[in-house]
Amino acid sequence: MNPVTEVPRRLTILGSTGSIGTNTLDVIAQLGGRDSFEILALTGNGNIDLLAAQARATGARLAVTADESQYIALKDALSGSGVDVAAGRTGLDEAARLDADWVMAAIVGTAGLAPTLAAAARGADIALANKECLVSAGDLFVQAVRDGGGRLIPVDSEHSAIFQCLDDHQRHALERIVLTASGGPFRAFSREQMAGVTAHTARTHPNWSMGLKISIGSASMFNKALEMIEAKHLFDVRPDQIEVIVHPQSIVHSMVGYTDGSVIAQLGSPDMRTAIGYALTYPQRPSLNVERLDFAKLARLDFEAPDEVRFPALRLARTALTRGGLQGAVMNAAEETAFTAFVEERIGFLDMADIVETVMDGLCGIGAASTIADVFAADDEARRQALDAIATRRSA
Amino acid sequence: MNPVTEVPRRLTILGSTGSIGTNTLDVIAQLGGRDSFEILALTGNGNIDLLAAQARATGARLAVTADESQYIALKDALSGSGVDVAAGRTGLDEAARLDADWVMAAIVGTAGLAPTLAAAARGADIALANKECLVSAGDLFVQAVRDGGGRLIPVDSEHSAIFQCLDDHQRHALERIVLTASGGPFRAFSREQMAGVTAHTARTHPNWSMGLKISIGSASMFNKALEMIEAKHLFDVRPDQIEVIVHPQSIVHSMVGYTDGSVIAQLGSPDMRTAIGYALTYPQRPSLNVERLDFAKLARLDFEAPDEVRFPALRLARTALTRGGLQGAVMNAAEETAFTAFVEERIGFLDMADIVETVMDGLCGIGAASTIADVFAADDEARRQALDAIATRRSA
Repeated sequence: MNPVTEVPRRLTILGSTGSIGTNTLDVIAQLGGRDSFEILALTGNGNIDLLAAQARATGARLAVTADESQYIALKDALSGSGVDVAAGRTGLDEAARLDADWVMAAIVGTAGLAPTLAAAARGADIALANKECLVSAGDLFVQAVRDGGGRLIPVDSEHSAIFQCLDDHQRHALERIVLTASGGPFRAFSREQMAGVTAHTARTHPNWSMGLKISIGSASMFNKALEMIEAKHLFDVRPDQIEVIVHPQSIVHSMVGYTDGSVIAQLGSPDMRTAIGYALTYPQRPSLNVERLDFAKLARLDFEAPDEVRFPALRLARTALTRGGLQGAVMNAAEETAFTAFVEERIGFLDMADIVETVMDGLCGIGAASTIADVFAADDEARRQALDAIATRRSA
Repeated sequence: MNPVTEVPRRLTILGSTGSIGTNTLDVIAQLGGRDSFEILALTGNGNIDLLAAQARATGARLAVTADESQYIALKDALSGSGVDVAAGRTGLDEAARLDADWVMAAIVGTAGLAPTLAAAARGADIALANKECLVSAGDLFVQAVRDGGGRLIPVDSEHSAIFQCLDDHQRHALERIVLTASGGPFRAFSREQMAGVTAHTARTHPNWSMGLKISIGSASMFNKALEMIEAKHLFDVRPDQIEVIVHPQSIVHSMVGYTDGSVIAQLGSPDMRTAIGYALTYPQRPSLNVERLDFAKLARLDFEAPDEVRFPALRLARTALTRGGLQGAVMNAAEETAFTAFVEERIGFLDMADIVETVMDGLCGIGAASTIADVFAADDEARRQALDAIATRRSA
């Protein structure tokens, strides 16, 4: 029995071998493991050894690798374990359709869209860590959750914070959402300094240990820009109700402002297990072995307004929010394409935002998605136009 | 009809002419005044003109002055208004017993005990601004609320903050309460500097515009010490679950720490109307014309550990909490007596805590209260012993 909810829960983790997935399994272990939860399916990609070890340790019913070429390897690794094995899109779909009460949606990228939508549509509670479900397919996804009747509980620290600060009785009084942003390593850079940044500097910067994608997304504030779009769909707010404030210590994970002048904030150590645990046991809270905040040690928390001239990503997010429809999908795809070009040193740091803006403007007439195929089409088209814009810029 | 709850509510304000009372009437006016709420009774003390004007403006059924000698004056001031008039203890009791759904308990001092207990016992929701109900009579008062079946909603900013951060679903996961303290004007003083402070310096200090009692209570941290005792009764926590952190900007009004590592904080401008409005429309939130926080303008929030050597009041609160029973009543009465002696320049600033400690130790064997008479007896005895201790000190 689960020590918190006293209800045994059947869980599936879509994307169990990444950092969200491994932390989810750590939380599950802290809350009693197999005595508290039944794992139906675990899915991964190329890390077959870890996936197989997780499936054996948890007694999962099904293990799936998204990489079809790894099917035999996974089958071999799990032989004699009693764990069923599947692979590829159909395997992911099978995992999503098993009747788990709760699904951690942690597959990265558009590959996470179809299985997460399938799980939402059949009414599972969705712990959401996949960005594209909201950024690229927000309207469709929120509708699928509504139709399915499950709960949608965000897992990244900012949206979990907002979710934790938003009382159901008080939705009527929600005035604004205040997303905090670390400001990234270029917080104090001039535009001239930013122009000189290359992927090489980025790779060797001491603060950039989180992986290049996250680090550069943090440095350009594109991460925060996409979070603004996620917030809009998660909390059903108008664009003008979403504020961003730079908070370098990243202790305040985000805040909610109410019509009575009150601001409720969620604070914590930078440990994703708090948000994962909250999603797992909501509306209750688990007891977790994570670091507690010591306010005397923290000593100070700083806040400053973000500069939308130096960080145009935030301005572009407002444009995408105002335009609505598939502009989020366009922005996300263009940004990923521009990011790759930057990492390959084909464009400069500041070019990324210019390219995203060019693509968004080129596709500003794009409508809303009726099906997931529309999302994929918009994503493809934005990537194509981004590549064109990159080529034009290089030949200019 | 109330625009928020859609339920007309019958209200009584015990102590309507003080700052809590006038702010309560301002909130009521902002939320629709007589169209939303019916005022049953208003009570005051010597400010008859204001009390009469409030009663006329709100159409109250009953106006009560606690000062019996003002009965005729109040009667005259309300002649022809249709407002009933009463005075003294029986008048306050009559006000408390009118069948208001919601009672603001804002009478200062032990005079507030009997009427607030009476209102709680008959099941009214109590918006609590009177300190003694919890500090001096916590066990009795909480039991009266429980027996009556109404809600107890704190109004001072720290406890309202905690109440706002404490989700009913998550009481099981409450780990600690973090009370914020401004630290007062002596935050950076050495004990030697404190020893030299007189009531005269206090009166002329620019930061001490709040009134001498509050200012000196803030400077000695006795206010915070008594709030710790209030928190214990309001939130049913152990003494070791109550932390105090110095936060000079007073923007974070207090916080709750949960077993998952999460800390939920309530922040706001220093405007008591937010907490009053919350108490009035709980569990919903009203829309209020109060200043909104601008985080870029705030720029920074500081925190530091309180020094229990320089501020022994906090240590004494832990002693009172550990001893339980009537030690809160003793501490409160001794502190008030010592405060008066300090203001009259009969003792020094640091003597206040010494005298409180002497009295608390002298009465450490005191038991729990069975009735409110026990509270008054403990209060009287503590004041008597404090006067003795003051006299001894002066003759030493």
